[in-house]
Amino acid sequence: MTDHELAEFEETLAARAFDVEKLLQSLLDERLRTGEIARPPRLLAAMRHGVLNGGKRLRPFLVAEAAALFGHEGHEARLVAAALECVHSYSLVHDDLPAMDDDDLRRGQPTVHKAFDEATAILAGDGLLTFAFDLIAGDPAYESGPDTLSPTQRLDLIRGLAVAAGFGGMVGGQALDLEAERVKPDERGIITLQAMKTGALIRFACEAGAIVAGASVADRERLAEFGSAIGLAFQLADDLLDLTADAAAMGKATGKDAEAGKATLPALHGMEWTRRQLAGLVAQAHELLEPYGERAETLKRAASFVAERRR
Amino acid sequence: MTDHELAEFEETLAARAFDVEKLLQSLLDERLRTGEIARPPRLLAAMRHGVLNGGKRLRPFLVAEAAALFGHEGHEARLVAAALECVHSYSLVHDDLPAMDDDDLRRGQPTVHKAFDEATAILAGDGLLTFAFDLIAGDPAYESGPDTLSPTQRLDLIRGLAVAAGFGGMVGGQALDLEAERVKPDERGIITLQAMKTGALIRFACEAGAIVAGASVADRERLAEFGSAIGLAFQLADDLLDLTADAAAMGKATGKDAEAGKATLPALHGMEWTRRQLAGLVAQAHELLEPYGERAETLKRAASFVAERRR
Repeated sequence: MTDHELAEFEETLAARAFDVEKLLQSLLDERLRTGEIARPPRLLAAMRHGVLNGGKRLRPFLVAEAAALFGHEGHEARLVAAALECVHSYSLVHDDLPAMDDDDLRRGQPTVHKAFDEATAILAGDGLLTFAFDLIAGDPAYESGPDTLSPTQRLDLIRGLAVAAGFGGMVGGQALDLEAERVKPDERGIITLQAMKTGALIRFACEAGAIVAGASVADRERLAEFGSAIGLAFQLADDLLDLTADAAAMGKATGKDAEAGKATLPALHGMEWTRRQLAGLVAQAHELLEPYGERAETLKRAASFVAERRR
Repeated sequence: MTDHELAEFEETLAARAFDVEKLLQSLLDERLRTGEIARPPRLLAAMRHGVLNGGKRLRPFLVAEAAALFGHEGHEARLVAAALECVHSYSLVHDDLPAMDDDDLRRGQPTVHKAFDEATAILAGDGLLTFAFDLIAGDPAYESGPDTLSPTQRLDLIRGLAVAAGFGGMVGGQALDLEAERVKPDERGIITLQAMKTGALIRFACEAGAIVAGASVADRERLAEFGSAIGLAFQLADDLLDLTADAAAMGKATGKDAEAGKATLPALHGMEWTRRQLAGLVAQAHELLEPYGERAETLKRAASFVAERRR
């Protein structure tokens, strides 16, 4: 991607991010829904702080684009996309806690436990995770217009999210990451760790779009594979950025991994190898989208962006 | 209830608890399911420590009994019951953390962050919560025999659980409990806090049984009301026990609330008022079950037990 193409894609992403944030803002306001007893204002504020923090919103973007690939442009994809962002955000809120990575800043802003307190950050994360399942289960209060998702589609989404985010996916990856501080994993260990910690949810974001759009099982699997490729690329690019970018561009501390002697693939194989790997993953991702022709143009650009982004 | 009746009911509860624990043990073993990448052994061990700790298993009991009231005795109720226990256990694991209640012991055993470490306890809680939704969404791997739950029933269960456990329910109640340490709530505030923190999940356990059994909306609401009454009784009895029982019987520190000057209804109104309230709630709970006649005998005993238990 040229600098111009990167900037252009970032603009597209930012416009979509704005849309997701508006939706999350309205979902996490003070209005009570059926069955709720009260919405404690401070907890809700902490949840909004954790989720409305100017992230790239890559996962919601992937959900919406994968759904659009199969002709779905409805409200349902937006709600599922918002749910995935809640899960991603909760994982960051918990990951930043003193007992975990102990980060004070996230995208240039104080982390939730810094802006509020540790207990509130734990609960805000718990609340965001729980809310994600609520969103996908579907509630008439969230819907505008007719519901095009069948109960079976919703259950597929819930099961897929729970597996991707759970102990066999994202949470398990975090646990392996903790252990990696004590015993350095080998190459295979690093790959497993990253496939779980960041890969599983990105993979599922792409698959989720296909599920929302009612795509065939073969198309669902193809999109999931696409998601795996860009998930791996995302992590490699992240590791590379940690080595090369400056803290101001990233809005968080950099060079932490190298300083901590953290086992990453770039640390193991060097930058040149990493750049070649990234190019290979982008090529693979593009190839997986070949059957969809021009309609897949935005998703292809997303794959390139993930690998070539500078922050 | 006489001493003999209390002991008899505790035996019934213990036999059922054994059944739930066997199921949870087998669900949280090392075998991978479809979609999972790996099950990190230490994380799984922490999750098992958090959930297999000899609790009373009141919530699973209520799910199963409410389902049985409407003629359902299948495997599905057991899985939904296990899911609710995962949610209850996760809330205890997070609640015990140093940043929250900072408890070293839970039912006479080291809490998860003591037996493992703080980061692992946070993740074990996250894993248990996520797994609960996975369990309810249903997976052929979990089922034995035909699936009698429709996708709509599963979605009702997921939505109900998410609302009961989320920021408008249990998590919100925890947040209010934190705030209560700084600003003492008035009577209405205490009631809201407790309806959220402990009431919502107990209420939902009873409703969930009715949903699993395919009961009518009216029956579902009646069971939910029953759940609300015993949820309130549960909390009042807990507050009373904190004032009167000794730590050995409870397997955790007692007198903590009074020492901390915590606002509870017994602290506000005294023991006599509390005992009258409890009797009133039990009567109300029993009355709600009148339409079901003798079939509701076990649930009625459960209501009495909740109010009159000595630990």
